[in-house]
Amino acid sequence: MRIGQGFDAHRFASHDAGKPLWLACLRWDGDGIEGDSDGDVAAHALIDALLSAAGLGDIGMLFGVGSDSAGAGKHGDEMLRATVAYLRAHGMRPVSASVVVVANRPKIGKRRDEAQQALSHAIGCEVSLTATTTDGMGFTGSGEGIAAIASALVEPIG
Amino acid sequence: MRIGQGFDAHRFASHDAGKPLWLACLRWDGDGIEGDSDGDVAAHALIDALLSAAGLGDIGMLFGVGSDSAGAGKHGDEMLRATVAYLRAHGMRPVSASVVVVANRPKIGKRRDEAQQALSHAIGCEVSLTATTTDGMGFTGSGEGIAAIASALVEPIG
Amino acid sequence: MRIGQGFDAHRFASHDAGKPLWLACLRWDGDGIEGDSDGDVAAHALIDALLSAAGLGDIGMLFGVGSDSAGAGKHGDEMLRATVAYLRAHGMRPVSASVVVVANRPKIGKRRDEAQQALSHAIGCEVSLTATTTDGMGFTGSGEGIAAIASALVEPIG
Repeated sequence: MRIGQGFDAHRFASHDAGKPLWLACLRWDGDGIEGDSDGDVAAHALIDALLSAAGLGDIGMLFGVGSDSAGAGKHGDEMLRATVAYLRAHGMRPVSASVVVVANRPKIGKRRDEAQQALSHAIGCEVSLTATTTDGMGFTGSGEGIAAIASALVEPIG
Repeated sequence: MRIGQGFDAHRFASHDAGKPLWLACLRWDGDGIEGDSDGDVAAHALIDALLSAAGLGDIGMLFGVGSDSAGAGKHGDEMLRATVAYLRAHGMRPVSASVVVVANRPKIGKRRDEAQQALSHAIGCEVSLTATTTDGMGFTGSGEGIAAIASALVEPIG
Repeated sequence: MRIGQGFDAHRFASHDAGKPLWLACLRWDGDGIEGDSDGDVAAHALIDALLSAAGLGDIGMLFGVGSDSAGAGKHGDEMLRATVAYLRAHGMRPVSASVVVVANRPKIGKRRDEAQQALSHAIGCEVSLTATTTDGMGFTGSGEGIAAIASALVEPIG
């Protein structure tokens, strides 16, 4: 059994940018998140936790960085599936994972089941999602940005 | 074996509020922490890690939010015991857990054993507690608030 | 199997301080990190994760705090080896560990393999290292400081 830790943080996009909000593989109401991909910090932190647990680098190594990278324009769901395929090609599979979103919005509670199912289907094991604010403090409290902390367990296949 | 990640952050209450400081199920000297419950961020982060590991939602779902919620006025100890009872009712039990407090105060070191015992007795497995500052940086460094990061392992009973 | 969470954050030293930059047991170009030891936050967060997983306190308890402490002037590599010796003397060994560095610099990617090998050799099990920025937000985004989040699994020997 191996453990992996993941973290990601992005700015919320300006309203003028007209970017849709994607988080935990779902589309939400409200302005989106900056980034070359869909800005899904929950998916990105989970990808880093999975890659780290498997000893296979990080999201930048697998998908590149920048607007012409392999990850550009990709949704978290697609990136998570590619991550698990990469793990399996190296003889590893996810066992369990957990993601905490730290932000003022969106409110996760009412769609937690839906989000957990989307994440779980994407990686093929149960993923839990929780959310909290920082009580108005720091860059997540001011609404400037959103962060996610993830942890994952992986094991060799077979 | 399943893994859960938890995070919580709260503001320190003003001196005028006269709120006692509760952390890791102990009372400490100094001004307390804002929140509808006793503001025990160490207990709250641990609760979220346990619920997440068990796939049972988060602290807001179990105890509600606001001054008339089930969690209002409750101590971390009582909330942790209710959390583990909820896990057990769903066939899961805690295996191991760890909490990091990020704050200028209180100084954990001298009462670490006492705090670890209180947390461990509350959830029925060993819980470790460490603490660090952010070297004067950010909302924990300015003394505005306090944060806690927790991780937990749970397994099915029997 | 027991789990441990670790966190550390330090300020970058001023250019005038002439302090070399040590991170993840490697020396990097650029100005260093404040601290009584070499300021290696990746090593320090990992030490706290290991000690916490083993229920053996934290880095301050093992190495002390301040310029005349046991940790003063020590490199992360040496502190990690002493930590694992301490675990082994208490019948525990590391199984797996993962560290996320949150900072604008140094850029980990090109030396990830080297850093992971240094960390892994120091503690005797595989350690993964990932890195991310906070998109210009907070004390890590402004370049004021650097943080690291670590998690570890340990088990009894034999």
